Amino acid sequence: MIVPRLIERKRDGGRLEAGEIREFVLAYAKGQIPDYQVAAFLMAVYFRGLDRDEMNAMMEAMLESGKRLDLSRLPITRIDKHSTGGVGDKTSLILAPLIASLGVAVPMMSGRGLGHTGGTLDKLESIPGFRTALTLAEAEDQIARIGCAMLSQTDEIVPADRKFYALRDATATVEVIPLIAASIMSKKLSEGLTGLVLDIKRGSGSFLPKLDDQIELAKAMIDLGSTHGCPVVAYLTAMDRPLGYACGNALEVVEAIEVLKGAGPPDLIEVTLALGAAMLVLGTAATTEDGAHTLMRDSINSGKALAKFEEIISAQGGDTGIVRDPTRLPQARHREPFVAKRDGVVQTVDPRAIGYGVIALGGGRRNMEEKIDPSVGFVITAKPGHHVTKGQTLATIHARSREDIAVGRSTLEQAIVIGDSAPPPLPLVSHRVTVRGVEQLA
Amino acid sequence: MIVPRLIERKRDGGRLEAGEIREFVLAYAKGQIPDYQVAAFLMAVYFRGLDRDEMNAMMEAMLESGKRLDLSRLPITRIDKHSTGGVGDKTSLILAPLIASLGVAVPMMSGRGLGHTGGTLDKLESIPGFRTALTLAEAEDQIARIGCAMLSQTDEIVPADRKFYALRDATATVEVIPLIAASIMSKKLSEGLTGLVLDIKRGSGSFLPKLDDQIELAKAMIDLGSTHGCPVVAYLTAMDRPLGYACGNALEVVEAIEVLKGAGPPDLIEVTLALGAAMLVLGTAATTEDGAHTLMRDSINSGKALAKFEEIISAQGGDTGIVRDPTRLPQARHREPFVAKRDGVVQTVDPRAIGYGVIALGGGRRNMEEKIDPSVGFVITAKPGHHVTKGQTLATIHARSREDIAVGRSTLEQAIVIGDSAPPPLPLVSHRVTVRGVEQLA
Repeated sequence: MIVPRLIERKRDGGRLEAGEIREFVLAYAKGQIPDYQVAAFLMAVYFRGLDRDEMNAMMEAMLESGKRLDLSRLPITRIDKHSTGGVGDKTSLILAPLIASLGVAVPMMSGRGLGHTGGTLDKLESIPGFRTALTLAEAEDQIARIGCAMLSQTDEIVPADRKFYALRDATATVEVIPLIAASIMSKKLSEGLTGLVLDIKRGSGSFLPKLDDQIELAKAMIDLGSTHGCPVVAYLTAMDRPLGYACGNALEVVEAIEVLKGAGPPDLIEVTLALGAAMLVLGTAATTEDGAHTLMRDSINSGKALAKFEEIISAQGGDTGIVRDPTRLPQARHREPFVAKRDGVVQTVDPRAIGYGVIALGGGRRNMEEKIDPSVGFVITAKPGHHVTKGQTLATIHARSREDIAVGRSTLEQAIVIGDSAPPPLPLVSHRVTVRGVEQLA
Repeated sequence: MIVPRLIERKRDGGRLEAGEIREFVLAYAKGQIPDYQVAAFLMAVYFRGLDRDEMNAMMEAMLESGKRLDLSRLPITRIDKHSTGGVGDKTSLILAPLIASLGVAVPMMSGRGLGHTGGTLDKLESIPGFRTALTLAEAEDQIARIGCAMLSQTDEIVPADRKFYALRDATATVEVIPLIAASIMSKKLSEGLTGLVLDIKRGSGSFLPKLDDQIELAKAMIDLGSTHGCPVVAYLTAMDRPLGYACGNALEVVEAIEVLKGAGPPDLIEVTLALGAAMLVLGTAATTEDGAHTLMRDSINSGKALAKFEEIISAQGGDTGIVRDPTRLPQARHREPFVAKRDGVVQTVDPRAIGYGVIALGGGRRNMEEKIDPSVGFVITAKPGHHVTKGQTLATIHARSREDIAVGRSTLEQAIVIGDSAPPPLPLVSHRVTVRGVEQLA
């Protein structure tokens, strides 16, 4: 393989053979091709794209570069949910125990906060003692025992993808749909799934704001899943405002527990149950979405889902006491309400501003070395379209200091806009994409 | 400067400020930006281009990264000639002494063979003892004394360009006209020129085969020269066949000496004198091209040009005896004529095949570590359009062994095609490009 000739071919719009891509990816993973040649290749791919076969070869090579969870001896289906990233999105915390409580295994490998968005691992680690760095053997064992493990991507899993991802981040080549699809699917297929539900975020807080791109990503991942025995169903959901009220790690765990107890914000419940219903149908625990909704309601009302969450926390070394007494989670020292400055209608609650605001309070990272404070964040009950009156509480700021309260206030002043009228927000769950095509739901 | 944001802006078709490009280039030269980010940037530039200001900023920063020849104290004009690279092109070996003999300084910094093309340094180094690695001080002193120095690019000269060039070569980002223009002009301006003649090769043996691209490169370099007090005149010349007869390092030195003695192949003489006339007019040694031709003929006929070549060889430690006795140059042990297999008309003498054939005989490099054998190569007297008869000698192969003679024969069988008729070859000198525009000459 002469690497500059390979780059040149992609640059000029030519095709690469599956064998060439495999050799290229595996050689890069082994350090046999320098970063700078891969960087030039990635930028050429940014402009020229990858066709289905190229994308598939890329994903297969990434998968081949590492180890996978071996869950094939389990007698039950194995379904995960993946989101393209949002603010206030704690659906994973609810779905993992909820779906596992209904007899479908959930091998859930999650990430940390990225850009303005939060990460499931950071949220879980706000639970005292909770350990996400499971080995593959530990995860396999725990899933066999209790039907679920919530873990971080280990060094053994798709190492090629990790190298590619870090390079893409440093070279402005992140926003390439076939690369995004191959990256996500290589990680997800390494979980040994029998099905995957994909939550593609829409709106100002999403990484992929164009509808065409969202559908293209969904189709690419459905395609990759189909050819590897892992059916994928994708939902397009609203991220023009935060999901639920809580934004910040421990605050989001509290809100997830509320939903598992049968309470919680209606928008969060709606999106969570839509995704959960798809997981249950894919996992053959329900034959219809209506049936799945009944199962989920029953599991929540009977306390089974909450008990499963305690089981997961216990298995991973966490303090199960937080389920009954959420004040055992880290608490911010300072809290202050944020009130409306005028009468009117909430026009926007900007998720990007809120996400960066959580980071500014210390609840997220500006670089991978930073430690985060799980206690801080916002609980924003105001939603676009709400009629509010001057002085009404719209949100609560949770911060480490008086100074940070001011930082939080400044974030909310920027993020929450009140006007005389408001355009309708995006429907919470607007499209479903399957092998059969795109259905508009709302 | 946040490098991924800068790459992203270029990727998305935006403009970079001159200050940003300067900072980027100088930081890269100092090792403060990793190769992989620059590689992604270069591929984005491949797709998006650089505008005039961006290209100019790039060139100025490369120039700023190193030292320059200081020839400002010289009372005479300083003109160089640069070619985009060809096969059998020994015009530099003739022009340096010829133009210097007429009172115009020639500070000539040359390169080595690249791809299928030969390099002036490799040819000069076939002269026993000839030293091309002059320091800037040595070159300045020699030019002040005898009006010419023929040297290699030292480490002090445009180090940023050397880093960029090596990276472009490894990342399939060589063929980008503003990058080519900025690279050449930064080197040429570091020679302290008052004018530059550019020889842009056309045809199958050229690196830039499209006429539009050739003219775009000419205009870019004219533009960069104009804004830095160095007028540039470009000629488009034929490289659909080798220039002259000899292809191979020592063989080309012999042929250059023949021209300096008033003999030599007519095509080589025509191209050399066209470029030389432009150098003399730019250097104000002649007011018209006709006048320049007379001066050059006189210098050759009187022996002044040849004496200047001996002076240069002597100043740079070479054996001046080769001028009177070319057999003092390295001689290939084996020589064999190559004859026509049929009657007919020569259709092609493929310069690319010939160039790679010289490398196959050991007369060029496959990588920068290889040593070359200066003695080997071809002397091809057959030219496209010549009528030949079966058994007629078309060329002589110069090789190190019997086996290599067979390699040379196989090269020529592939490169020289005889048919019943032949399309006309490209005119030797077809276009002149100046600040005033493009003139078609033939």
